[in-house]
Amino acid sequence: MTEDEIKTLAENVMNGNRRALAKAITLVESQNADDERYAGEMLSMLNIAKPAIRVGLSGTPGVGKSTFIDAFGMMLIEKGLRVAVLAVDPSSSISGGSILGDKTRMASLSRAKNAFIRPSPSQNTLGGVARRSPDVIRVLEAAGYDVILVETVGVGQSEVMVGEMTDIFVLLLAPAGGDELQGVKRGIMERADLIVVNKADGELKPDAERTRADYAGALKLMRKKQGDPVEFPKALAISALEENGLETVWENIETLFDWRNQQGRIAAERAKMAKLWFEREFITQLEEEIRRHPDWQANWDVMTENVESGAVNPRRAAKEMLAQFQIEARR
Amino acid sequence: MTEDEIKTLAENVMNGNRRALAKAITLVESQNADDERYAGEMLSMLNIAKPAIRVGLSGTPGVGKSTFIDAFGMMLIEKGLRVAVLAVDPSSSISGGSILGDKTRMASLSRAKNAFIRPSPSQNTLGGVARRSPDVIRVLEAAGYDVILVETVGVGQSEVMVGEMTDIFVLLLAPAGGDELQGVKRGIMERADLIVVNKADGELKPDAERTRADYAGALKLMRKKQGDPVEFPKALAISALEENGLETVWENIETLFDWRNQQGRIAAERAKMAKLWFEREFITQLEEEIRRHPDWQANWDVMTENVESGAVNPRRAAKEMLAQFQIEARR
Repeated sequence: MTEDEIKTLAENVMNGNRRALAKAITLVESQNADDERYAGEMLSMLNIAKPAIRVGLSGTPGVGKSTFIDAFGMMLIEKGLRVAVLAVDPSSSISGGSILGDKTRMASLSRAKNAFIRPSPSQNTLGGVARRSPDVIRVLEAAGYDVILVETVGVGQSEVMVGEMTDIFVLLLAPAGGDELQGVKRGIMERADLIVVNKADGELKPDAERTRADYAGALKLMRKKQGDPVEFPKALAISALEENGLETVWENIETLFDWRNQQGRIAAERAKMAKLWFEREFITQLEEEIRRHPDWQANWDVMTENVESGAVNPRRAAKEMLAQFQIEARR
Repeated sequence: MTEDEIKTLAENVMNGNRRALAKAITLVESQNADDERYAGEMLSMLNIAKPAIRVGLSGTPGVGKSTFIDAFGMMLIEKGLRVAVLAVDPSSSISGGSILGDKTRMASLSRAKNAFIRPSPSQNTLGGVARRSPDVIRVLEAAGYDVILVETVGVGQSEVMVGEMTDIFVLLLAPAGGDELQGVKRGIMERADLIVVNKADGELKPDAERTRADYAGALKLMRKKQGDPVEFPKALAISALEENGLETVWENIETLFDWRNQQGRIAAERAKMAKLWFEREFITQLEEEIRRHPDWQANWDVMTENVESGAVNPRRAAKEMLAQFQIEARR
């Protein structure tokens, strides 16, 4: 890409052009070395007029996450807001055992003019996706989206990453079946600003209310995030299917965001996250750099063999490996 | 240290000299650059006649872990086995709200001739400890210990590390109070080969048995580790205080270890762990190396500031930072 093409792309993104947006996201996610350079240049040309409210949404398969996003997103659009959705893990598109396309998962939202759904990543891009997500969020913010929903399936490390790139964290749950050990991981509970128990409709309504009360009780025992209004974190029971309680979810997100924003905590948190991300990126890139060195592979293979056979201690092997290279400042 | 001194130290460790053992462990844990080199040389001189059974032991404060280790260790010693204990997290010496020394925590074991308790790491060595633990285990194996207990408090990432350096993983629990959300993290449950419910004595005996049955049921729903006998993972109820059931715990550990050993899985798993550890050590050392570079700090500070203020995108900042250095092969 020429300098002019990159500039045009950045401008079109900021003007709200959807095709440009899709192209910019693809560029940002690309692992091609040239694309990475172009992406870096484009990102530095983007101005963010107004920061979006970034909402992390965690929910395991079966809690009705797609239905929730579809209904919640449409409600926001009816309020005149622009909504973007992105997923950090490929498996979040697996629902009820079958892989559904985003158009099937979120039927209304995927057709709405003021919504943008970043296609769920395919299996083979796993790992690289979350690394690029903060940049994707930046592109979406520059494109003027008011609310960015970052969804994750609620298993493994992905909540931590989602927590690091969002302002408010919502945990979506289904009414509990009563199995103690299926309980939510404590670490995820502690991260949640809002616990939303879905499926408070039909036969499950009493269960949903009981589950909500259980979690409300449990939240009281947890350490609060310092500086938040006393009523947070909060547990709500809603029905995405019947579109009940969605307004309340949004009111709570807005209240908490505004509160934190007025205290300067949103900006401070984003700065902290950017620093953390910088450090991680640096280590990742440093590793990539040394692995690209022509003398790397043969050495690595021999060392790995020695370590696996027990002939060389892992720590010593690492030291020997590193001793073969030299880091110099460029002048 | 001279070459001769290192050699003498290694030989004394292998001859079972306790003072040499303590000295060797201190050397291996040292973060001094010279010590690291000596430690590497010493480690390469150690021969391991017979691999120890490495047992990971996870239990949160209050489950009676110290009592268990003391009683279980003494039982093993009465069988003629030599037992070593080490902790990966400083907080594992915090019990009942107060910090107890290892001599208080494990009164009998700390006086036994055939036991070696590596003093619990102090708070200020946190982080570095687990990184050195696999080397400490190697020293203990060379010194002829038959069983090495690696204890952790069962919170955070420490189980993962302990799982990576041990052959059998035991999860110690207290009888449940019935609070669903205080449940054990699923990830830890999945790692356990044996769940041991302690305090099956006095008033708590029925609770302990009920808890054991609950966990036995839950374990049935979990994915088994491939190739293990059908009865594993297993849940047991014991009393460390009354020394009831300790023999059964040991029989199960031995059975599972022998089974896996005959299948070649112990050796294969250790080779895999060594490779993983090598890779991690390499990244850590690479980072340390570049951070020691004289041109590093000023660049880093400026970049961090730019990233925090939002002036530069974190990914781009990492790239710019890296571009200032060059990695070359030494000839």
